[in-house]
Amino acid sequence: MSSPTAGAAPDQDDPDANSGGAAAQSQRTPKSERTREQIVAAALQLFREQGYQGTTMRAVAASAGVSVGNAYYYFSSKEELIQGFYDQMVTDQAAACVQVFAGSRDFAERLRGALLAWLTAAEPYHEFAGRFFATAAQPDNPLSPFSRASSPARDASIALYRELIDGASVQVGAELSVTLPELLWLYQLGIVLYWVHDSSPGTKRTRLLVDHTVPMITRLVRLSRLPVIRPLSRQTAELVTMLRSHPS
Amino acid sequence: MSSPTAGAAPDQDDPDANSGGAAAQSQRTPKSERTREQIVAAALQLFREQGYQGTTMRAVAASAGVSVGNAYYYFSSKEELIQGFYDQMVTDQAAACVQVFAGSRDFAERLRGALLAWLTAAEPYHEFAGRFFATAAQPDNPLSPFSRASSPARDASIALYRELIDGASVQVGAELSVTLPELLWLYQLGIVLYWVHDSSPGTKRTRLLVDHTVPMITRLVRLSRLPVIRPLSRQTAELVTMLRSHPS
Repeated sequence: MSSPTAGAAPDQDDPDANSGGAAAQSQRTPKSERTREQIVAAALQLFREQGYQGTTMRAVAASAGVSVGNAYYYFSSKEELIQGFYDQMVTDQAAACVQVFAGSRDFAERLRGALLAWLTAAEPYHEFAGRFFATAAQPDNPLSPFSRASSPARDASIALYRELIDGASVQVGAELSVTLPELLWLYQLGIVLYWVHDSSPGTKRTRLLVDHTVPMITRLVRLSRLPVIRPLSRQTAELVTMLRSHPS
Repeated sequence: MSSPTAGAAPDQDDPDANSGGAAAQSQRTPKSERTREQIVAAALQLFREQGYQGTTMRAVAASAGVSVGNAYYYFSSKEELIQGFYDQMVTDQAAACVQVFAGSRDFAERLRGALLAWLTAAEPYHEFAGRFFATAAQPDNPLSPFSRASSPARDASIALYRELIDGASVQVGAELSVTLPELLWLYQLGIVLYWVHDSSPGTKRTRLLVDHTVPMITRLVRLSRLPVIRPLSRQTAELVTMLRSHPS
């Protein structure tokens, strides 16, 4: 009934379980990880069925078969459950990318594979995402992909793109190299934004967008070593630095 | 009390007043144009004060000093009033651009001036836009900037960018030339999206984004004539064609 205190520890074998987010994933035990996943899965099912507004933490806990206190131990608020959704998407994407990256060193194939892996993971949540992203798009919302609260999922995604590039048989210009993973994450955000608005059957227009833009991104990356393109790489790096800096 | 019939004509001297949107603007008489602007101004004030949901057509009509029937004659729904907002923004932007375009043939200066003109026109509506865009971002919303209903404002904006390019002392590659106005409109949409989320004082971060990206866009446009860049221009044109085509 009452809110849990910060010190509550339903899983005695896992004192780090409440550190939250993909970044802390390595510190979790299999058991607490399983409980966490159960809660996220229950929440996402309820969000799909009853909407984000209509879902309570109590209902999530009941559906996951855990106490309300235990649910709050893992997620301090309903909003944090959405961070769980973001984490889940990048975890599923990374799992699918193991095979994609092992199968090809071609940059374009790896990039296309990574994006399609995200779309495949997110497909069951398409309708929910459409309704939900309208809320997340509000200014200053901690659910914004740029927020501090979203940094674990964002960092995990950027790390995945770093891995994509490092294993690819492509030469990237020095200026571009540092910022490219973050740029590819921004590109993925653009694809996701389009996907949210995509009402075509099976969101096939988004897949068409991927097929059209991957060769363009690949061409730009290849051109990044040309002297005539280098100033653009530098400007892009400056832009990312500006975007990353805290608003004043 | 009752909804107006389609044939109602409060302004006998202006049978075309109900054709709506920026495209039909040339057919309007000064009197009907004035009435229309009064209604839009009243609506935007109410949206700012009471929110979009809390504003009724009846309140808009009362505030504008016209009958409810007359208000419905110009705007068949509250949503159409938002189209009036879009139209108003591009009209104000175009008015400010007359001086910008007359003052310089430099592509970058013209582009920067056009974007700052939009930001200046939209500044009083920043808070409203933040709340409202969350609604407009819903899938299939006719208020989406890509919708058929938004085409008058979109076409007017693309025409403004065509004028910007045609009067500038810049050589644009043939493949890029056709789609460049639409690409600059898409670029402006990106700036607007950032602006909606910008909580810095005076939205100065958006102005910083303009200052960072205008030189990059300008460089890309100048490079468009190089043989090594041409395939990218062709791919970009194909992408715009894909985006423009109707979802199936």
